[in-house]
Amino acid sequence: MLGVRGGWQALRHCSSLPRAVRLRVREALGARQPVGEVKVQGWVRSVRSQKEVLFLHINDGSSLESLQVVADPSLEDRDLTFGSAVEVRGKLVKSPHKNQNMELKAETIRVVGPCDTWLFPLKMKERHPLEYVRQFPHLRCRNNTLGSLLRIRSEATAAIHSFFQDNGYVHIHTPIITSNDCEGAGELFQIEMSHETRESAQKTHFFNVPAFLTVSGQLHLEVMAGAFTHVFTFGPTFRAENSQSRRHLAEFYMVEAELSFTESLQDIMQVMEDLFKTATSTVLSRCPHDVELFHKHIAPAQKTKDRLEQMLKNKFVTISYNEAVETLKRASQTFTFKPEWGCDLQTEHEKYLVKHCGDVPVFVINYPYDLKPFYMRDNEDGPQHTVAAVDLLVPGVGELCGGSLREERLPFLESRLQRLGLADAYQWYLDLRKFGSVPHGGFGMGFERYLQYILGVDNIKDVIPFPRFSHSCLL
Amino acid sequence: MLGVRGGWQALRHCSSLPRAVRLRVREALGARQPVGEVKVQGWVRSVRSQKEVLFLHINDGSSLESLQVVADPSLEDRDLTFGSAVEVRGKLVKSPHKNQNMELKAETIRVVGPCDTWLFPLKMKERHPLEYVRQFPHLRCRNNTLGSLLRIRSEATAAIHSFFQDNGYVHIHTPIITSNDCEGAGELFQIEMSHETRESAQKTHFFNVPAFLTVSGQLHLEVMAGAFTHVFTFGPTFRAENSQSRRHLAEFYMVEAELSFTESLQDIMQVMEDLFKTATSTVLSRCPHDVELFHKHIAPAQKTKDRLEQMLKNKFVTISYNEAVETLKRASQTFTFKPEWGCDLQTEHEKYLVKHCGDVPVFVINYPYDLKPFYMRDNEDGPQHTVAAVDLLVPGVGELCGGSLREERLPFLESRLQRLGLADAYQWYLDLRKFGSVPHGGFGMGFERYLQYILGVDNIKDVIPFPRFSHSCLL
Repeated sequence: MLGVRGGWQALRHCSSLPRAVRLRVREALGARQPVGEVKVQGWVRSVRSQKEVLFLHINDGSSLESLQVVADPSLEDRDLTFGSAVEVRGKLVKSPHKNQNMELKAETIRVVGPCDTWLFPLKMKERHPLEYVRQFPHLRCRNNTLGSLLRIRSEATAAIHSFFQDNGYVHIHTPIITSNDCEGAGELFQIEMSHETRESAQKTHFFNVPAFLTVSGQLHLEVMAGAFTHVFTFGPTFRAENSQSRRHLAEFYMVEAELSFTESLQDIMQVMEDLFKTATSTVLSRCPHDVELFHKHIAPAQKTKDRLEQMLKNKFVTISYNEAVETLKRASQTFTFKPEWGCDLQTEHEKYLVKHCGDVPVFVINYPYDLKPFYMRDNEDGPQHTVAAVDLLVPGVGELCGGSLREERLPFLESRLQRLGLADAYQWYLDLRKFGSVPHGGFGMGFERYLQYILGVDNIKDVIPFPRFSHSCLL
Repeated sequence: MLGVRGGWQALRHCSSLPRAVRLRVREALGARQPVGEVKVQGWVRSVRSQKEVLFLHINDGSSLESLQVVADPSLEDRDLTFGSAVEVRGKLVKSPHKNQNMELKAETIRVVGPCDTWLFPLKMKERHPLEYVRQFPHLRCRNNTLGSLLRIRSEATAAIHSFFQDNGYVHIHTPIITSNDCEGAGELFQIEMSHETRESAQKTHFFNVPAFLTVSGQLHLEVMAGAFTHVFTFGPTFRAENSQSRRHLAEFYMVEAELSFTESLQDIMQVMEDLFKTATSTVLSRCPHDVELFHKHIAPAQKTKDRLEQMLKNKFVTISYNEAVETLKRASQTFTFKPEWGCDLQTEHEKYLVKHCGDVPVFVINYPYDLKPFYMRDNEDGPQHTVAAVDLLVPGVGELCGGSLREERLPFLESRLQRLGLADAYQWYLDLRKFGSVPHGGFGMGFERYLQYILGVDNIKDVIPFPRFSHSCLL
């Protein structure tokens, strides 16, 4: 997003002294030719004072790499320390060193904001572990690893938006506050007025009915797929469970899409695979250094880069739930949970299957009817009765995406909802099947798990901007 | 987003019979030349049966315009009614009528999903008022007006994302659940576990401290602006107030940006104006027919189109709060609230000022110190003490954006927080001023108010995908 697309446009927003071109560090590093009079602003990442020359490295978050500043030692200042904010004016010239393109020959250096290095929890040239920086949610973004993470997160977000826009999807903001629990999946957060409001409003529920934070926008998207054929949403979702684990967040982002006029589950799987590969290629090409940092220092044992390149080249593997259970039964490995047709696949089973298929992403399709929510389409098979559902499993993370064809046939849906005692609550959902109902389906992808997978990050709290629970003021 | 950018790429995701090219309606309407064998899917918007020929109009949400289908009367079917879903195969040919480019000569018409026209609340060729369709949140997107609104909303969202990406901003997902109330502005929604969860978890607060839905991501963005210099967020925000009014939503979207190394309030205002104009130009050029529908049928009296074109051409007007109060005092109009230096501008005042300045967007800058939250930068003026704050007022809507320079100077911030008794709660915020603090500022823009302004929509509930409060199942 920076430099390449942005380029010199960023300059439009800056008032600057005559003749001095304000450059972001990324723009300066990528410049094709020297620039006579430039101004660079950022934070000092290193200071090295020699007898003849003063070297600084300046970073402004536009790239992992910092810009080298070369100055006369007379420009040294006691406030010019690691972490301080500076504005440097001078000439951008070709660097004599082969590992950098350009460097800045300083004419003036102004310390805009000094840094109390004694109190500052980040130290010069130290590679702090993720666990350490997680303690400082308001400062950790100035650490290289978190800087890279947040640039990647931003690029991945943009890539996902572009994928859907380029393919003609309408973006829908599905409700965050809802009275709908979608599939009864997971624990819900309930919304209340704060105490003072409750007293002044003289009522218990703000919305007159109990209201919750959304666990999925799927049902709302299905409404929209009845008018637009291709819709997507990409926003926060919530589960009040397992909040202290390394795998779960109470608040996480989910990409969800819904397509009308589908002909088979393959239509849905194709979009899942295309989305996954397009987003990943974009991130790899736009943030190569940021991604490399993760593959080199955070997950070197996992050979993440090779795995990603292999993944992008090959078609994802597909197996049926029936085949999965047979494979697990034949396995020489002993499982804590005995694999059995009709039972959910456990994490240990998913791991085995992914390994068995060659450590690549694996679609598992056609799950038992009784395991899945009411809206999934009946395959009308037997004796092992299944629905047209699909999960995408990936190495190291497990389930990344889940999707299905939705039951578009009124009689099937009506009788299932009646058996479950839900026909009244979902009258509006049945309604949709009366007015031009078409075969449709969709899927959801957990965005943080996606980032964990491509970067090899173990703890899901390290792929979000603010690590909740560790620092209540910034929860 | 559809057709133009998407084009034929959408085809990749469709399995289709050999030789038949699956086209979205927008693609078919925009085709440059006849196509031999095509398949179009969508919902019937009109059926006109003549002795020699059967005319249909098919809409799939990819555009406001429907595709005309011309068929032999033998293809008629009793299920082929308004609202039914169909798949039509045939030849795409130049239309002999001058008000349409292409039409589809049908070879087969298959009714995929019939529609119970008796129960369907939308009627053929009727222009239903917004109040009427708001009763049917699960079906109203199949109405022309709401279809146009949702395409515009999707395009405007994309345009806002692009604006920031093109200008080198990092996109940050600021927390939705937070313990932070930002500025004590507005009533908060509190988060609780649902009753069952609370019992099984054996604790009162899920996060061990009271948690709320965010009212603004500003303070979190300020953290990030200390590492990236240009950051933005665009997500849901919440206020538990005035939920039944035409002007307020409990859940609404806000665009927020934060910039480091600002030199004056002008830097912030320039970004606000550029964002506003870029997004609006994009929407006008990508959805001209959708926007026209609003300007023609929803707000014809407001001459919205002329107003927008004028707005795009001229620079926004800027007046100081001092000038605003003087202007109001000189006004011949009698106000319910007497204009007085030191008091908030009321809606009636804002309306007067906008009209006084020629019915164009107006920046009001430099508000009284005592009116504004602690984080706004002290102008150190007097005797009328002000802060570097700005509001953008627009005709018909009032306040659309608010922004300020933030107080980056530790001593100023520290003494102000101490006077307010907030120094402990905001220790982390003070911390930011110790480690390379730089002049910075930012702003927020209400997305729904933006849509109301450009489209001339009176009730804010008509610019969101799901009208809450009217239909609890889809809240």
